[in-house]
Amino acid sequence: MTRPHTIAFAMDPARTEGVITPPLLDRLARSCTIVDPTPLRSFTQGQAPEVLRRTEILVTGWGCPAIGRRILETAPNLKLVAHAAGTVKGFLSPDVLEAGITVTHAAEANAIPVAEFTLAAILFANKHVFRFRDLYRADRNRSRTFPLTAQPVGNFRRTIGIIGASRIGRRVIELLEPFHFRVLLHDPYVDARGAAALGAESVSLDELMRLSDVVSIHAPALPSTQGMIARHHLALMRDGTTLINTARGIIVDQQALIDELRTGRIDAIIDVTYPEVPEESSPLYDLPNVFLTPHIAGAIGNEREMLGEFIVEEIERFVEGLPLRSAIMPAALETMA
Amino acid sequence: MTRPHTIAFAMDPARTEGVITPPLLDRLARSCTIVDPTPLRSFTQGQAPEVLRRTEILVTGWGCPAIGRRILETAPNLKLVAHAAGTVKGFLSPDVLEAGITVTHAAEANAIPVAEFTLAAILFANKHVFRFRDLYRADRNRSRTFPLTAQPVGNFRRTIGIIGASRIGRRVIELLEPFHFRVLLHDPYVDARGAAALGAESVSLDELMRLSDVVSIHAPALPSTQGMIARHHLALMRDGTTLINTARGIIVDQQALIDELRTGRIDAIIDVTYPEVPEESSPLYDLPNVFLTPHIAGAIGNEREMLGEFIVEEIERFVEGLPLRSAIMPAALETMA
Repeated sequence: MTRPHTIAFAMDPARTEGVITPPLLDRLARSCTIVDPTPLRSFTQGQAPEVLRRTEILVTGWGCPAIGRRILETAPNLKLVAHAAGTVKGFLSPDVLEAGITVTHAAEANAIPVAEFTLAAILFANKHVFRFRDLYRADRNRSRTFPLTAQPVGNFRRTIGIIGASRIGRRVIELLEPFHFRVLLHDPYVDARGAAALGAESVSLDELMRLSDVVSIHAPALPSTQGMIARHHLALMRDGTTLINTARGIIVDQQALIDELRTGRIDAIIDVTYPEVPEESSPLYDLPNVFLTPHIAGAIGNEREMLGEFIVEEIERFVEGLPLRSAIMPAALETMA
Repeated sequence: MTRPHTIAFAMDPARTEGVITPPLLDRLARSCTIVDPTPLRSFTQGQAPEVLRRTEILVTGWGCPAIGRRILETAPNLKLVAHAAGTVKGFLSPDVLEAGITVTHAAEANAIPVAEFTLAAILFANKHVFRFRDLYRADRNRSRTFPLTAQPVGNFRRTIGIIGASRIGRRVIELLEPFHFRVLLHDPYVDARGAAALGAESVSLDELMRLSDVVSIHAPALPSTQGMIARHHLALMRDGTTLINTARGIIVDQQALIDELRTGRIDAIIDVTYPEVPEESSPLYDLPNVFLTPHIAGAIGNEREMLGEFIVEEIERFVEGLPLRSAIMPAALETMA
């Protein structure tokens, strides 16, 4: 038997509770030699240089120190960076990939809770559930609440517009399959045939905004997508329709969004904003047509274990010499979410 | 070619807008002779006796006058009552069935929106989405909102308890299939094998209340189910779990529910209450752990067209002599929702 691979961890324990659970750590111990089970918070202090020197597999997570060219010297045996979270952007330098170190990540597992949150948001949006709730609470009289049904309301034959055939966008389209929806997709890298294979119709962004009863954003945050949902796109949305954003706030022109929402013409279910916590006076907290949540669509609570489980399976594949499910190609890094 | 069947309508137009849409009426006109397209609101006044005398198929809906033994005399040619809504209870006497008149109904179509609402409610309940929203709105600070994640939260490996393998209960179980849930079922008429065939585990009501992260009620409102969810059942629910009721308020001991919700120990998403509109001072409107909606889970807005479409298809089958999908057997009437 060959010597087992050595493994160590780098993440902020306060932010990653429940990701690598004790049973998952036990499972890793069966295929790897754990150099140190305590996650590193820094790559330079304390035991870190000694741990890194001996490490072949580094499991990273939220709060991991930046991994750049220097790690090639401090961790000369490093073969795999396995990121137990949704994106390696912001902490992983392309240099690491170019140096031949394999990098994998749990974006696929993180896509699941986001898509599930989005599905629930779509079903409630078409039915104007939040408005019905607020009106009932205010009126305490069903007959006064019910004129709302004069508006287009309900989940029958509605049109759902998905922006971005990302992992999350694709999973949302899959989850929409049992319902009575027409699904539109806008993605500059997916043509009509590709969209049809996913179960959607390929349309331009303008058409999507104009035709959809619910628009849901699943594009990556890239320089090219900053503000891609601009004032004129929001103006194309029909009265009484809903914008859902579980991707990144910066993709939508925030001032244009606030201006449009202030008119009450459209609704919004937004889990992300820019800045991420809106200022205290932001109307996004208070407008009756806005349902604002604190960036919870992704893996929270017990959903974090999905990230850990996915990444442990990737490590097991790596150890056995099998192809990984989510290895990152150097060329893909710049268009990734 | 045989003479086409004669058809008429009985429902309250103010309550049934969008059920039989103009295209559906045109479709009926292709297989039947429409005696009068204006729905009857009474069976005794104005044109009603003459319309009924000539009618073989009566399409009923919300607000239909009671149909009892007398209709056998006033509508001597009546062969089919086709109810474009969820239940014939309360307006149709068993005498009509016993007299050999066929009765069908759109409960199957009405089950779809209720099940969809329930799915969205389950996904948001496990994730405590409403609490996160309220806390974020109150605190405007993500780090103060986030201690909520210390509670069990998330949609991974949760246990969903379904009370009642009704059409709606079964459809909810089907819709739960793509998610990572353990599904429990309590139904006195479904055994372990039957539950397994549906994709659930059969358990007692007490076990279901004790083990579930979300309990969702889909039992019919019958004398035997009045108050079936009693004080001690609610007490069995673990802290932080959620009760969903989209069935009928009377199935749950309302005072016990209010008492339990006042402690804040469990959450509730309730679309139905008893009485149906709670009194103005009811805590159900205001408690932060209660999401109360005005009986909207069933077909509203464009979802009503599903009822009309289903019932038109039933009529077309009847006219062609094919078996109906939802014909009511006289013996089944008393256990139906």
